[in-house]
Amino acid sequence: MKAEIIAVGTELLLGSTVNTNAAYIGQELSKLGIGLYRQTVVGDNVKRLKKALSAAFEECDLVITTGGLGPTQDDLTKETACEFFGQELVLHQPSLDRIMMYFKGMDLKVTERNKKQALFPETAVVLENNNGTAPGAILEKDGKRIVVLPGPPNEMKPMFELVKDYLKRFQEGVYHSRELKIFGMGESTVVEIIADLIDNQTNPTIAPYAGEGEVKLRITASADDETEAERMIEPVEKEIRTRLGGHIYGTDSDTIESKCVELLIRHGLSVATAESCSGGRLAAAIVDSPGASRTFLGGFVTYSNEEKMKRLNVSETILQSSGAVSEECALQMALGAAEAVGTDIGISTTGIAGPDGGTDEKPVGTVYIAVAFRGETTVQKFFFRGNRDKVRTRTVKAALKMIIECVRDHFGE
Amino acid sequence: MKAEIIAVGTELLLGSTVNTNAAYIGQELSKLGIGLYRQTVVGDNVKRLKKALSAAFEECDLVITTGGLGPTQDDLTKETACEFFGQELVLHQPSLDRIMMYFKGMDLKVTERNKKQALFPETAVVLENNNGTAPGAILEKDGKRIVVLPGPPNEMKPMFELVKDYLKRFQEGVYHSRELKIFGMGESTVVEIIADLIDNQTNPTIAPYAGEGEVKLRITASADDETEAERMIEPVEKEIRTRLGGHIYGTDSDTIESKCVELLIRHGLSVATAESCSGGRLAAAIVDSPGASRTFLGGFVTYSNEEKMKRLNVSETILQSSGAVSEECALQMALGAAEAVGTDIGISTTGIAGPDGGTDEKPVGTVYIAVAFRGETTVQKFFFRGNRDKVRTRTVKAALKMIIECVRDHFGE
Repeated sequence: MKAEIIAVGTELLLGSTVNTNAAYIGQELSKLGIGLYRQTVVGDNVKRLKKALSAAFEECDLVITTGGLGPTQDDLTKETACEFFGQELVLHQPSLDRIMMYFKGMDLKVTERNKKQALFPETAVVLENNNGTAPGAILEKDGKRIVVLPGPPNEMKPMFELVKDYLKRFQEGVYHSRELKIFGMGESTVVEIIADLIDNQTNPTIAPYAGEGEVKLRITASADDETEAERMIEPVEKEIRTRLGGHIYGTDSDTIESKCVELLIRHGLSVATAESCSGGRLAAAIVDSPGASRTFLGGFVTYSNEEKMKRLNVSETILQSSGAVSEECALQMALGAAEAVGTDIGISTTGIAGPDGGTDEKPVGTVYIAVAFRGETTVQKFFFRGNRDKVRTRTVKAALKMIIECVRDHFGE
Repeated sequence: MKAEIIAVGTELLLGSTVNTNAAYIGQELSKLGIGLYRQTVVGDNVKRLKKALSAAFEECDLVITTGGLGPTQDDLTKETACEFFGQELVLHQPSLDRIMMYFKGMDLKVTERNKKQALFPETAVVLENNNGTAPGAILEKDGKRIVVLPGPPNEMKPMFELVKDYLKRFQEGVYHSRELKIFGMGESTVVEIIADLIDNQTNPTIAPYAGEGEVKLRITASADDETEAERMIEPVEKEIRTRLGGHIYGTDSDTIESKCVELLIRHGLSVATAESCSGGRLAAAIVDSPGASRTFLGGFVTYSNEEKMKRLNVSETILQSSGAVSEECALQMALGAAEAVGTDIGISTTGIAGPDGGTDEKPVGTVYIAVAFRGETTVQKFFFRGNRDKVRTRTVKAALKMIIECVRDHFGE
């Protein structure tokens, strides 16, 4: 079965709404093993929607639409789909009853306009909406199917569960994926190392994606069921792990943030932060993970030199001779944070995020990050490209990576 | 000029990436007065991309693609677009030089694969990429244009500024907008207050948008030039300001973050942060603004009770009797931060971001925020809905808003 998603709505074209529905449905269809051929967005326009339906059925046997099921005269998706299939709309009494009930609960008035939401072809499978007034429907003709769903994600998602049950009947096998998360290596280097694996891929397939400061490799197997898919993925994953080693920091929903916090908690280690250029973002990234309070006790944002001295015991001599953006200052900050809060690990950032403050010697993007682990220290100098926001984002990722490496060096995975 | 956006990427079809690019470009095109006919997403597949290009040019004279400019053999957008126009790729030396420079800075290796990113038709307008390796391009043939842009939003967005300059040449008249930024009022309330203005709009038009914890009103005039558009917008803006008053915190590119820092700097005020549940995000939001060092000296992330006592002088009695998530604790934190760093203003956050830690009395989403201004204090209790991330985002916005209100109360705008 091949599918296309058609989202209907001028607000999507104008960009005031992001089409998150398409991503959600895409994910769900791929889990069902249904190939997605294309996604399309058209405005609230009958002619264009009809044209999109024609184009979709040239290639696909399933079209899923979102949006355009509301009560206003702009909402024409269902009417257009029915016309496309030559099916007539008649009153679907259970839907009208539900709409009346819904309004009663909300203390709002049912208008004539709402009644059009209860009209469906007699042959349609009507999909109940427990989170709004617009029911959805599955229309069928000559083996082709149109599923019309409401636009608001909180109405569409629960309704899609009903669609899944329906679609499972037509399912042949599953697509199952494993994502390997990689840091400290560019996409092209990763691809070079596993070029032969990618070139010879058929099933499972291997696809690389570049993320923010990291690379993802997705291994996807098409199989009769998930267990078989897992078995097919395993040797490929193993081979990739052999080649990329410690650069793989996690899988699937792991992030550098979650992996860092998980490792710290697993080894019973506490951490304190001392931030200058990242300005609180590093602490925030750690605290992003639920359960962070088990490893993170406190942190300092020491933006001024005086604060660096007062909180972290950075020496005035170093600030005067080497400056706040220096190896020495980063080291004292990391040691000072661990000492002050009494943690196993102290991590510090100091750099020039821009747009101002750069010099020939220390241009914008120069960042020092230091880790102190029970008195042992390491410091790394970075030069990041990009604007203020990007420099700070990269600083945080690099700092988390240094924590992960520090823990691994001392305790293994 | 009519346009279509074609996003290229199997990860978009599979739903592992949300197509935020299309929304961004849709917004920008609408500001330029360029109508968007359709958005399409296709996988990394030459045949399908070609078909999409053909279909697009049936209706449009401008196609903007995103994605597929990377160094791997899957990345074929540029190659396909050039083939579609029958244009040959040759080495563009300035691009190769930039890629070499970029890699030098990052301490990564340039591979043969990266070199393909420096190939362009001789007639193309090459668009520099300051945030990644893939340059973009504007291809032109017989009055039809394809703009190829990279997929990562942090690379695409800055590059789109160059595209805007280019597109302005073809513009007949301008669409010019003023955005009014509003906080402390829901979208439906805003709409109710100015309903008559919205209903009677023709030119300029008024459109409301709901953002994260704020509402935006965009006034758009269609005119011969910007000056005329500005003149048309002025009386409408004035009328809206009369009705919404202090709820309008800024215009256009103003954010709550930038407005807060700007006000603090303008009045020569210094600020220190004391964060529990926001975990560093509030300091980070302040530091996001260039020049923040003129108002922000330092901050504390006091996640444990001990840290709250040690850094901020919160009393053990209060932690025991009222708990860390309490009005009293928030007040002491704000006062403690201002005192310790010696600033005019201290701002604190303490709350339950979830997913765990909620009780009947203090459910997840309960947050206290306090501001201390030269010894005067105010504290506000909030209950935010949503997950951990959302609670923390809302906390930061609310805290910034309280700072803005505090400064305005004492100094006026």
